[in-house]
Amino acid sequence: MPQYTPPMRDMQFVMHELLNVVDELKMLPGHEDIDADTINAVLEEGGKFAAEVIAPINLSGDAEGCTLDKASHEVTAPKGFKEAYKQYVEGGWPALSCDPAFGGQGLPHLVNQFFYEMLNSANQAWTMYPGLSHGAYEALHAHGTPEQQATYLPKLTSGEWTGTMCLTEPHCGTDLGLLRTKAEPQADGTYKITGAKIFISAGEHDMAENIVHLVLARLPDAPQGSKGISLFLVPKFNVNADGSLGSRNDIFCAGLEHKMGIHGNATAQIVLEGAVGTLVGEPNKGLAAMFVMMNAARLGVGNQSLGLTEVAYQNAVAYAKDRIQMRALSGPKAPDKPADPIIVHPDVRKMLLTARAFAEGGRMLQGYTVLQLDKALKSDDEDERKEADAEVALLTPIIKAFITDNGWLATSHCMQVYGGHGFIHEWGMEQFVRDARINMIYEGTNTIQSLDLLGRKVLGNNGATLKKFGKKIAAFIEEEGTNEAMQEFVNPLADLGDKVNKLTQEIGMKAMGNADEVGAAAVDYLRVVGHMTFAYFFARAAKIALAKKDSGDPFYTAKLATARFYFAKLLPETASLIRTCRAGLAPLMEMEEALF
Amino acid sequence: MPQYTPPMRDMQFVMHELLNVVDELKMLPGHEDIDADTINAVLEEGGKFAAEVIAPINLSGDAEGCTLDKASHEVTAPKGFKEAYKQYVEGGWPALSCDPAFGGQGLPHLVNQFFYEMLNSANQAWTMYPGLSHGAYEALHAHGTPEQQATYLPKLTSGEWTGTMCLTEPHCGTDLGLLRTKAEPQADGTYKITGAKIFISAGEHDMAENIVHLVLARLPDAPQGSKGISLFLVPKFNVNADGSLGSRNDIFCAGLEHKMGIHGNATAQIVLEGAVGTLVGEPNKGLAAMFVMMNAARLGVGNQSLGLTEVAYQNAVAYAKDRIQMRALSGPKAPDKPADPIIVHPDVRKMLLTARAFAEGGRMLQGYTVLQLDKALKSDDEDERKEADAEVALLTPIIKAFITDNGWLATSHCMQVYGGHGFIHEWGMEQFVRDARINMIYEGTNTIQSLDLLGRKVLGNNGATLKKFGKKIAAFIEEEGTNEAMQEFVNPLADLGDKVNKLTQEIGMKAMGNADEVGAAAVDYLRVVGHMTFAYFFARAAKIALAKKDSGDPFYTAKLATARFYFAKLLPETASLIRTCRAGLAPLMEMEEALF
Repeated sequence: MPQYTPPMRDMQFVMHELLNVVDELKMLPGHEDIDADTINAVLEEGGKFAAEVIAPINLSGDAEGCTLDKASHEVTAPKGFKEAYKQYVEGGWPALSCDPAFGGQGLPHLVNQFFYEMLNSANQAWTMYPGLSHGAYEALHAHGTPEQQATYLPKLTSGEWTGTMCLTEPHCGTDLGLLRTKAEPQADGTYKITGAKIFISAGEHDMAENIVHLVLARLPDAPQGSKGISLFLVPKFNVNADGSLGSRNDIFCAGLEHKMGIHGNATAQIVLEGAVGTLVGEPNKGLAAMFVMMNAARLGVGNQSLGLTEVAYQNAVAYAKDRIQMRALSGPKAPDKPADPIIVHPDVRKMLLTARAFAEGGRMLQGYTVLQLDKALKSDDEDERKEADAEVALLTPIIKAFITDNGWLATSHCMQVYGGHGFIHEWGMEQFVRDARINMIYEGTNTIQSLDLLGRKVLGNNGATLKKFGKKIAAFIEEEGTNEAMQEFVNPLADLGDKVNKLTQEIGMKAMGNADEVGAAAVDYLRVVGHMTFAYFFARAAKIALAKKDSGDPFYTAKLATARFYFAKLLPETASLIRTCRAGLAPLMEMEEALF
Repeated sequence: MPQYTPPMRDMQFVMHELLNVVDELKMLPGHEDIDADTINAVLEEGGKFAAEVIAPINLSGDAEGCTLDKASHEVTAPKGFKEAYKQYVEGGWPALSCDPAFGGQGLPHLVNQFFYEMLNSANQAWTMYPGLSHGAYEALHAHGTPEQQATYLPKLTSGEWTGTMCLTEPHCGTDLGLLRTKAEPQADGTYKITGAKIFISAGEHDMAENIVHLVLARLPDAPQGSKGISLFLVPKFNVNADGSLGSRNDIFCAGLEHKMGIHGNATAQIVLEGAVGTLVGEPNKGLAAMFVMMNAARLGVGNQSLGLTEVAYQNAVAYAKDRIQMRALSGPKAPDKPADPIIVHPDVRKMLLTARAFAEGGRMLQGYTVLQLDKALKSDDEDERKEADAEVALLTPIIKAFITDNGWLATSHCMQVYGGHGFIHEWGMEQFVRDARINMIYEGTNTIQSLDLLGRKVLGNNGATLKKFGKKIAAFIEEEGTNEAMQEFVNPLADLGDKVNKLTQEIGMKAMGNADEVGAAAVDYLRVVGHMTFAYFFARAAKIALAKKDSGDPFYTAKLATARFYFAKLLPETASLIRTCRAGLAPLMEMEEALF
């Protein structure tokens, strides 16, 4: 069974050495009293919960899966999931970054982000139960009526109730404008909602006493398409005026999907048969409210693959040090043993270092972005809020797509390190690969992310946000211009920055002629910009490591080696990506549909 | 459930237009009477068997898996597998390319290769049962005693009995020199074999009346390491002098692995408790005999991923034409429908065309290589035999690693086309991905393949074989030098050829200083050379398509579009690979083992 050790040292590096989060957070109203010791202590405890409580039920949860009783429509989560969730609630973990006005602890989102990385490493399927609640919490916090907030937010904050996002229907996923679920207004101001939803993560289970479904549906007079969608709150159990649970609402789990991975999470088909709901936000403005959930979810999905990358790396390293097989080509390295540990082989190291660099790069990018999110939510300076918000919007699709694509590569490499054993369930490595695969699909496929980045976030404002981010990179390069030891990092970074500028302009020009050029370029483009962000953060990390490399702390030696590996072996992927991006639309459209 | 249509037209193109296989095969003793109609008719029938008999039990076989009765050690294959195998035997399919001296039909290996591609598309797990028999057949045909051949080859040829390769042990996979299974000589000339094997594909089942295990073990006086390994034939049921089945031999299935994929195939833990075996080939020369099986198996594994790539492509195309979702960025393409079919989106096309190009490229490379195999086995000209054999040896690791890595990419892309539905078992796409994953691992991991290519097959003879293959490419480029329409293909091919020469020399030089440079470069190098072979075959295919594009047959229009896509969007991967290859060993070795 896989083991997991929370990467405290690297998290602390990212928070306190790379990002100076305490200084930044202290400037924000509500976080004046934050200090490093508090953050570290919370994460130490959170890491223990992840490693000791939910990691041990990950493999068994995958093997067992969820069970639906078709008669009662009740779902039982795998053995141990309910008990672990009870501990989670008793420990106050759901409240970490929630609003104190509703019982939350009011810690920065940043702390929650690092906490969730560890939960995801330990057990992605389990973590999705509380994870989905956050989306529901955010949507209600932003758009709920005072009554909805008073009734539901304290229960979501405490974790007594969980939440879901009921968006997808059999005929529409990406294209929510096609959805058919109907909401009929009732005399008492509520709505009766009827329809069928699929792919509802954590959609039904036995871990909490109530489930708060947020459901997209159409009002009778709604315009067609995405401008006619409204958001409704539909509880599993109706809630009495005193807050106690009332009658069972007519929203049921009609089936569970058999999936490639995340078996421990109940992916439910949800049927609404005149279920009672209340409107969240304004009529026909449901997509805007939904995007509050969705943006949080996309950062969360990147974090899932970051977690899987880290845990896959840790286990593959342990195996590579332990497993002896063949001799190094350059001669025996463990002559006292019948063969060398496989970590002596350069390609095994390459697979391990790829996962390591993707984990460290992803952690820096996620940490940076969530720090901007805290600023966007809390700063008392409107300009700072707006600027931070734009940067989060720019980086969110990169986090979602780049980190999950990397997670798929990394978990597959780590599985490969195990040879045949990697394919066997009991080692746990193939589960990481299967679990990682969904992250490239849900909450907007990675193609959708790339269109969001290139079409909306970059070309949509003539590259203004990207240019602002680029100025931060340029300033850093400028600072290090005379630092000889930094040239191996800043030169390729500067070179890539120039190429990104040029590429962006080229695509913009071509897109004016044919908008499909955006669709042809977007996926490659996102990976190029993703690499630019990783290169920027690795260069910053290298600067710190160079300054401290004589400190005697081997952490900095390792950080420098990882940064060098990244620049030598991963960043050059951009050479191909820029070429294929530039090859444009024509090679994709030459074949008539009938000839496929 | 996925559908499958045998790609007869493209197979015929590869055989009869690209490779002129009939003219080539007719020159070989034993194949003088071969003609295109016979080959096509056999493959038509074979395709029907694949599509109608074994494709329908692929998804159900995956869901059900194999069952071990621990008391009797008997394994039951999934529902329908046994009945399908009976039809397979009754149809005479196992005998297709077997030696007429033992009841075979004596058709070229090439025919069997295309037949197996279709079986693999339809049901990889099922196909492994007869597939493993071929390895056992080849090893006995090459190294068996006359008695062994007379007793076992007719039964393997008819398919009444199946075969296995029992190599791996818990502590050794790649490094067979470490193996511990013991063989004790008996007074009657047989051996009593004792040990434990794992990962034995098709290791136990209820589909045939006997199983012929080929087992690697050590004689009592054997030298240590790989020079002390011998190969033994150990039947499940001992065989009486008259060929009838005798007593149950002491070789048992002790467990079945729970795996990521190929659930329908029994991956057995095999225990030998003094099982009676006979020696195959010479004492302590078992690895050489084993490599006869292994080389055949490696070509077969490439063919597995080729099959999966094709079937994943076909289904993703059907889905992309059927599923409507969003509008094309350039404006509605199906204004009569509520949304456009997703095949209008450039990135969906890119994912589909990637799979298509990998399938067509793989089919050309495999077809070419197996034609050389037929020459190597049958030519009456020793020089031709030797040259063909060297070329097969060169191309085998490329087929095994490049086609299986491509298959992993392609099946994952095709699954992605389905969005969330791709993650759901009933659509069958995620099974293709899971099944494809083992092909990168077994019969020598893809890293081992790359070391075999670069270390042994290229640098091992100073690049002589690669240069010979390069001369064929150069001759083709030369021929097309004045053909303007071909410049878009031959120029990048010539450029890549030059780069491969230079890269090979560079690595050779560096390896003289440190042999680990080979290990650092090998995986990237193999993909570069793999692309060179694909570019060569796509250029040749484009030449034919250009000549016939006004024929009115849209097949050639599509072939040309696929070739152009390949050159524009896939071949540029080499730009990055050459850079990372060149970055060499240092970035992989800088990190001390303890710091991982």
